[in-house]
Amino acid sequence: MPLDLTAGPVDLTRAICDIESVSGNEKQLADAIEHAVRALGHLEVTRVGNNVVARTHLGREKRVAIAGHIDTVPVNDNLPTRFETLVGVDYLWGRGTVDMKAGVAVQLSLAPQLVDPRYDITWLWYDNEEVSSDLNGLRRLSAERPDLLEADFAILGEPSGGEVEGGCNGTLRVDVRTTGLRAHAARPWVGDNAIHKAAPILETLARYTPREVRVDGLVYREALNAVLISGGVATNVIPDECVVHVNYRFAPSRSGEEAVQIVRDLFGEHHVTVVDLAEGARPGLDTPFAQEFLSAVGATARPKYGWTDVARFAALGIPAVNYGPGDPLKAHADDERVALSEIVACEQGLRRWLTAQ
Amino acid sequence: MPLDLTAGPVDLTRAICDIESVSGNEKQLADAIEHAVRALGHLEVTRVGNNVVARTHLGREKRVAIAGHIDTVPVNDNLPTRFETLVGVDYLWGRGTVDMKAGVAVQLSLAPQLVDPRYDITWLWYDNEEVSSDLNGLRRLSAERPDLLEADFAILGEPSGGEVEGGCNGTLRVDVRTTGLRAHAARPWVGDNAIHKAAPILETLARYTPREVRVDGLVYREALNAVLISGGVATNVIPDECVVHVNYRFAPSRSGEEAVQIVRDLFGEHHVTVVDLAEGARPGLDTPFAQEFLSAVGATARPKYGWTDVARFAALGIPAVNYGPGDPLKAHADDERVALSEIVACEQGLRRWLTAQ
Repeated sequence: MPLDLTAGPVDLTRAICDIESVSGNEKQLADAIEHAVRALGHLEVTRVGNNVVARTHLGREKRVAIAGHIDTVPVNDNLPTRFETLVGVDYLWGRGTVDMKAGVAVQLSLAPQLVDPRYDITWLWYDNEEVSSDLNGLRRLSAERPDLLEADFAILGEPSGGEVEGGCNGTLRVDVRTTGLRAHAARPWVGDNAIHKAAPILETLARYTPREVRVDGLVYREALNAVLISGGVATNVIPDECVVHVNYRFAPSRSGEEAVQIVRDLFGEHHVTVVDLAEGARPGLDTPFAQEFLSAVGATARPKYGWTDVARFAALGIPAVNYGPGDPLKAHADDERVALSEIVACEQGLRRWLTAQ
Repeated sequence: MPLDLTAGPVDLTRAICDIESVSGNEKQLADAIEHAVRALGHLEVTRVGNNVVARTHLGREKRVAIAGHIDTVPVNDNLPTRFETLVGVDYLWGRGTVDMKAGVAVQLSLAPQLVDPRYDITWLWYDNEEVSSDLNGLRRLSAERPDLLEADFAILGEPSGGEVEGGCNGTLRVDVRTTGLRAHAARPWVGDNAIHKAAPILETLARYTPREVRVDGLVYREALNAVLISGGVATNVIPDECVVHVNYRFAPSRSGEEAVQIVRDLFGEHHVTVVDLAEGARPGLDTPFAQEFLSAVGATARPKYGWTDVARFAALGIPAVNYGPGDPLKAHADDERVALSEIVACEQGLRRWLTAQ
């Protein structure tokens, strides 16, 4: 059954949630979206893999990109969706309702309405956001068709509780390693215990006070945590290696290089190997464009802590924010559910901004 | 080719090393040993699985058990054996030469010679010493045929560099566990990091000074070590559990129960689970019987740190010591090698003791 883009954003959320699209399985939903937007007439539609891009060409001075990923994390007995009411609030319950098909539904609902928007609009629906970065549809578009991403400002419809979340912390993962010398556990004095040597590393982490850093008016909370630890060879052998896998979430005012230096300084005496590094993104909320958006949608700006695709836009030089329905703490949860009122409010907010004179 | 028990202990060591008998594969060697000792006439031979027991019945007042395991750890390009000379010392090189076929060869070489020993002798050759305790041939005999183990004193031919090693430390393994609360690593303040909480556990281990405890005239060195550590769920999740696997080697003057209490007291605030416990064995070297043995073989007594099957005899109420050729530090080594002079000296020592009037 084809998608009815005029059904309203709530029913549209339900319809696209019930088309299961766990990462890697987005084809059916991408087909339905492509078919629906091609029928509109005022949009130029481009399909790249399971990514669909639909653009107005009205000759406006500015262009905004409005993007959403169409994949979800695996279903866990939480499809098909259902409506439910909890403590007087009406929800749509089920996989994808929060992360982030309600956001996609708001976009799909607006696409046919906004035939004469104040800015040119690039609608982007992409695949594989919930899996390894090298599969990410937005990454693929930025590599293969960067022209399709050109814009002056970008909105990602990721769940932000209807508020505006700007920028994101960078994230660095390193292995901090101690080494020793193996020996039989009955004669440890001929060996050198690498696990015992990890004590000061854990001490440093336990003592560490994360900084709060103000960037473009928003306060970012940093975090430094051991996320994994492993060491040892066998139950009767003195261990010759222990590896603490440390994750540093750093404010977007720091470069990745600075973050690496901070961690090296902290664990100076130990061997530090960088495993993964993603730069943060400044919120860019002090630009006039962003200020106007904030005031039109009537939302409060707050920092985003997790790494999201706004950093991809930031890397292309495009200021980007998250703005979408749903409580981010319910993303990936088995009882994922979105308040219907948030879906409606986000649609209204975007419409107000894009139709203002 | 049948074993020639009159070939001398060095050639006999070589012959039985070249019959590969990695744990679980002892049948061929057990067959050869059984065949050779059955031919002697003065011994009553009993076969239980791949364990061979050969006993004199001379009506002596006392009986000694002399035991050796016939299995080895896996071969690693170190068979067949070869003779080699290093820095003027002649060695037999190869898997099993130290642990412990030289000891078994000394026993096999003495079996036909000692037709009129001063004590009745129980020769014991058993399987599966290098693997899980429940497979151990000596354990099997003590369960199925305890009568075959009856003795007043026991010698295990484990490598002890030709000295006498008495008793052994007990060994206790526990899991020391910290718990916390999972959260996304971007928002650690809503979680509780269990790996960071392991800092004081590693601190305690790193600071711990092992005791030296005098037992029956020998000084035992205790040891307390983390041998394994693990914790964490994923690279983007605050870990809710960390487990430090701790091994406590305790002097044979303490009971297992006391050892558990010592560890519980040390890690009082954390959750401690006992995983494995083996009592130690007092050396028993202050008995007249042991003193006479020591003086006959002309060896120095020293404590054994690792847990060996002497503890099995001790549990049956039989004082037991290790006495065998080979450097224990070469046991399980890829360059396992035994000095020929140690093989000859051990054979002479045992003969001197058992034929003295």
